[in-house]
Amino acid sequence: APNAGRGRCLCTAKGSNFLPPKSLAKLEVFPKSSSCEHLEIIATFKDSKQQVCLNPDSKWVQKIVKNLIKRRSKRGSAL
Amino acid sequence: APNAGRGRCLCTAKGSNFLPPKSLAKLEVFPKSSSCEHLEIIATFKDSKQQVCLNPDSKWVQKIVKNLIKRRSKRGSAL
Repeated sequence: APNAGRGRCLCTAKGSNFLPPKSLAKLEVFPKSSSCEHLEIIATFKDSKQQVCLNPDSKWVQKIVKNLIKRRSKRGSAL
Repeated sequence: APNAGRGRCLCTAKGSNFLPPKSLAKLEVFPKSSSCEHLEIIATFKDSKQQVCLNPDSKWVQKIVKNLIKRRSKRGSAL
């Protein structure tokens, strides 16, 4: 889970390669910055409110983010 | 700017069609839910910490989100 330390990366490990889109309450994307030299993505789940770091390099994660935004894609994204 | 009312959409207007990627501190994506029937995207800016609603239908916004995640894209995203 992300640590709340100021001025450091929020995610210590690489992050999860998968997330069930239906259980997503919020997605936070932190571009690289002075406090963390790589992009970070944190998902917050609906029920548990649990926060999970996602792996920005994971094709699945990239696909979910893309579908999330292009919600009118024909396949009908689950969100 | 997003209103913090519980149980309602955070963004009242359609949102901005553009955002300068370099000034982005955080991007929050809220899938449609019981409290708001459409997807919302809120950008937080670096310096002012100001929050701005973005228009999820804007091609430019979709492109920024996609480039943000696919930071290894050849054009070299600005982030």
